[in-house]
Formats: sequence, C-alpha cells, structure tokens
Amino acid sequence: MEERTEIRDLGEFGLIDYLTRNIELHNASTILGVGDDAAVIDQFGRQTVITTDLLVEGIHFDLSYNPLKHLGYKAVVVNLSDIYAMNALPTQILMGLAFSNRFPVEALSEFYEGVYLACDKYGVDLAGGDLSSSMKGFFISVTALGEVAPDRFVRRSTARKGDLLCVSGNLGAAYLGLQLLEREKRIYQENPGVQPDLEGETYILERYLKPEARSDVVQMLQDLQVTPTSMMDISDGLSSELHHICKQSGVGCTVYSEKIPLHADTRRVAAKFNLDPVTCALNGGEDYELLFTIGQQDYEAVEPSGLISVIGHITGAGERVGLVTSAGDRIDLPREGWNAFRS
Amino acid sequence: MEERTEIRDLGEFGLIDYLTRNIELHNASTILGVGDDAAVIDQFGRQTVITTDLLVEGIHFDLSYNPLKHLGYKAVVVNLSDIYAMNALPTQILMGLAFSNRFPVEALSEFYEGVYLACDKYGVDLAGGDLSSSMKGFFISVTALGEVAPDRFVRRSTARKGDLLCVSGNLGAAYLGLQLLEREKRIYQENPGVQPDLEGETYILERYLKPEARSDVVQMLQDLQVTPTSMMDISDGLSSELHHICKQSGVGCTVYSEKIPLHADTRRVAAKFNLDPVTCALNGGEDYELLFTIGQQDYEAVEPSGLISVIGHITGAGERVGLVTSAGDRIDLPREGWNAFRS
Repeated sequence: MEERTEIRDLGEFGLIDYLTRNIELHNASTILGVGDDAAVIDQFGRQTVITTDLLVEGIHFDLSYNPLKHLGYKAVVVNLSDIYAMNALPTQILMGLAFSNRFPVEALSEFYEGVYLACDKYGVDLAGGDLSSSMKGFFISVTALGEVAPDRFVRRSTARKGDLLCVSGNLGAAYLGLQLLEREKRIYQENPGVQPDLEGETYILERYLKPEARSDVVQMLQDLQVTPTSMMDISDGLSSELHHICKQSGVGCTVYSEKIPLHADTRRVAAKFNLDPVTCALNGGEDYELLFTIGQQDYEAVEPSGLISVIGHITGAGERVGLVTSAGDRIDLPREGWNAFRS
Repeated sequence: MEERTEIRDLGEFGLIDYLTRNIELHNASTILGVGDDAAVIDQFGRQTVITTDLLVEGIHFDLSYNPLKHLGYKAVVVNLSDIYAMNALPTQILMGLAFSNRFPVEALSEFYEGVYLACDKYGVDLAGGDLSSSMKGFFISVTALGEVAPDRFVRRSTARKGDLLCVSGNLGAAYLGLQLLEREKRIYQENPGVQPDLEGETYILERYLKPEARSDVVQMLQDLQVTPTSMMDISDGLSSELHHICKQSGVGCTVYSEKIPLHADTRRVAAKFNLDPVTCALNGGEDYELLFTIGQQDYEAVEPSGLISVIGHITGAGERVGLVTSAGDRIDLPREGWNAFRS
C-alpha cells in the first residue's frame, strides 16, 4: 500500500521543514534562505530582501465580504509587512493572479485600483507579474522586494536572553473584524432580507479588510539607530510568532498578559462575542503588527515614540514560552495561531 | 446596468495593457517594469532580473498525465527560461504552492524532488516561498531572480531593421507531445482497459513534460561577446512571440517557412495527426526556446555553434509580420499563439 501522510498532520511549518530538510544552496549570493519573513540576497555587497505570499479564495478571503479593491490593497500590504519585518524598505512588487471566467474586466480593475493605491502609499512599483485563468477560484500571488543596508537585515533567530519583547500597535482587532463579517454572512444566508449590521465597527473591520504595514515603526527604529535583535511580523497570531522567535533563537520568553496592547473596540467587541480579548490577540492573526526584541539599553530611546508596547522579555536557552496571566499565574503558551491547513 | 467586459474579449495581453495603462513608477531602481520577459531592478549600479509565472491545474497542466516530479522541474525551468531570455543568469527562485487536501505529503515530496533537480541542474537556490491550502486545484507560483552585468540585459523592444531573426533548437515538439497525451487520455477515458501507447515518443513527450531552458545559448552568446539586439523566450508559440518583438520594437519581419527548425519526430507525429508541422511550430507554444535578433555582422560568429537557426530578418517600421511559405508566397502571419484565456 502506498504511504499517505496527511498535510494537516504536519501543519504548514512542519511541511516546510520536511520539504526543505535537504536543501542545498549553490550561490554565495543567497545570504538567508527559507525560514524567515523574507530571503536575503547579496547583490555585489548590497542586499535585496525578497518574499512571496499566496492569498487563496475560500482560505484567506471570502469575496462575499472582501471587496476587491480592499483585497488588492491587502494583498500588497501583507507582503510589504514581510519586507519591513526584515528591517528593510520595500521597492517593487510582482503580482500573479489566476481567476475564473466569472470575473469580468471591471472586477480586475477594482482589484488593481487597490493594488495601485497601496503601491502609491508605500512608494513601491508594480514591476511585473502574470495573469492566468483558473478552473475555479481567485488566486493571488505577490512577490515583494526591498532594500537593506549591508548586514542590517534582522532575522527571527537572533533574540538574546534579557532582550525586551516589543509589539507595535495593538492586537486582536482583525480577528474580531473577521468574526463580525462571518456572523453577518451567516445571518444573511439564513435570511437574505436582513441587512448586515456593521455600523460603528469601522475600526475592527478596517483592521481585517484593509490592514496597513508598519513602515513608521521601521522608519522610527532607523531614525533612532536602534537595530532590533530579532523581528518578524504578526500574521498568524502573537502566540505562534513568539514560538517562532524562541524556537529559532534557541531561547524562551515571559510575556505579561496585561501588557498585551488591545484597542478599546477590541475589548468591547470581544465581550459581545463572549471571547477573551487577550486570547484574540494571542491566537487571532492578521494583525500585521511587528514583533521584535531590543537590548535593554535601547528601551529609553524607543519608549517615547508611543508606537510600541513592551510585553515581556527573552529568557534563557531551554526555557519555555510563558505567559503571566492577569491573576499572576505563569502558564505555558500553546503554539496555536492561524493555520492555513486546519481542516 | 453594471458594465461587464469579458476577459476573453481582451485576451491576456490586452488585459495586461488595460490594467497597467496608468502605471506610475516611484523608484529609480525600477529600470524595466511590466511588458518584457522579466523586470530589471538596479541594485546600486548592479542589476537584478526578476520574473514570476503561474501554473494552474486544468489550464497549464493536467495531473492525469503530468507527473508531479516533472511538473516541479518544469515549473522551475519555465521561469528560468524568462531569466535567460533577458540575457541574464538565474540565481534564486521562490516557490508558492496552493493545493487541496487530496494531496498527501508524499505527492508534494515528489513535486519538490523535481524542483530540487532543476535547481541543481541550473545552479539556482530555492530561497523561500509560501505554502497554502486551496479549496480545489493545484496552483504553482514561481518567482525567479537572476544577475546581469549593468545594462547588458536584452529587451523585446530593441530589434532593428536588417537584424537577423534567430531561434535556438527546434519548435513544435512540445505541442505535439501534449496532443499525444491528450489523445491517450481520451482513449483511456472511453475505455479504461486500454493502456496508453506512448512508446517511441520519448523525445516529443519530454519536450512537453520536462522542458529545458537554454542556458547553453546564453552562455554561448556571452562567450562570443555577442549581445542580441532583442530577445524573448518562446512560450506561447513562434507567431505570437514574433508579433511581440515586432510590435514592441516598432518594426516588421519576414520569416521563411522552410527555415523554421523542426525535429524529425515533430514531422513524423504531425503527419500522424494530420497537422502541418510548421503550424505546430508557429502556434503551438511551450517550446522554451529562445527567439532573438542579432546584427548581420554577428552572423559569422554565431553560426558555427550549431545551436541556432536563422529564420528570417527584421524589416522596417510599418511593415507586417510576414511568412514566406514553401511555395514562395508571402502571407501575413496571424498573431494566434497559446492563450490562457481562450474559452
């Protein structure tokens, strides 16, 4: 009998590890390969950062509530976020699209309006791409390039014991935006006469439908000449990203539940859904905020910016990824996070 | 009533023109954007070439006869072909894959075996990528990067009157390989007891299932210090590519039917299918040979390589894309070529 291992048993990161376990690099110019937010390629002493991300209909978005213009914007932004997460500045994107014949030219035009809006806002160029039909479904593949001064890129794997754990902005809002849209979709499906009730929820809806990448945080760090010791963007949920940084750096960490930044709307909507807003922040995903570590000596420089929250610190090798709850208990943080292969 | 323009009415290139008609570039580093085999990006005086291509199940391949290992190999090669077509040498790829849960880990392993085989053969690194599930279907998105000495990249838009039109290898075989596989699939579907009869057709089948990119031709040109005046790879059929070069260069051309290189197996199998082998070469596609123009003074240097055929020459502005048939008649060559949006 032929062997059959289900992909959900490995998960995305297990699958990546498995498929790249014997990878061999041929070119000295490949400075950093698989396993970070982006790859780093040497161009005769200068460095290019490059990343690619897929957005798949039915998995990453639902065209019944993701407007195409927002989707075009978001497809660009989530890739730029990976470039910023390397401490680099994005310069170009390539856009690959596959779509069935149910989409007219006007629909693609709307999508590209969003793409160009994001390109303008972040000062990047759409430099190429590919268009194809598909039998079914809308598939988006974006590749983004960026520049970084030689060896100033920041990996996930270089956090050190004693470093402070920082996050930009606030977490959990996008997840609740998605819950709201899913709820209204269910109500509409059960009773098409009912109009969606999304009034007053602009903040959390925009966090999900039209996120921004934290160019301002990277700019602030560069202005202050502070280089994070490790960094990544928060796309799968804080908990999953903490595990990435700790595992790849060979360290543990302690995070304080009460320090995790939450927007007032996140707390309010979480209460309406009977959800713990901290759990939304830990396991929700799609925040596109930056998670990074800095040496303690950099705290005073970074703190006045108002852009970041210190949520904990890095502990030694062999330590766990721990959360101190509001009751003062220390628990191990499960990896969780968003999983594109969850059945 | 909302406007609805069908994409098939514009075609792939019309759609690209339409969606990129107002494109604005922000970065001086974007030397060449949309509209060639690849984009060119300046890296502080050095140049990176970058391209992305989608391969979509049911459109570009059929898993009932495209073995996954071959498909992984081909997905890499067709992107490298775009890099060589810029007169550049490929260095890295990124691989994005989306697939439904009908694929076990073992299937992806096979696919990646082909990917690594191509990486080894062409000396490129798999530097990153993205994996995702899909509701249905297998989607492949490959981005390839390459290096070229400053301003030595070759566009499609720079052919000049009097230049010689050259193609590498031979044309039309991949198209017939596909016809053969499609015929055997139909026979099998009608009578699952019948075994496919593909014996003796290794050459044309491999041309379709496992094409190679013409690194040797680019190497030869660089060794001879011959820079083509224009170049592209032949992925959609010679006729379509001739139209691209002529339109983008603002010239016409004359191609001689009898000069178009055909393999003996192409002639033989075309006859079996009652097809004209020259038509297969003109409209078939997926050859991944190089089409390029050189100044007449370079002919003597290039000819002894045995790698290329001169099939005609470039004519002046306002001239047509013309074919001289074996009977000596001159006809206008229709654009045709393979179209991913053909219904």
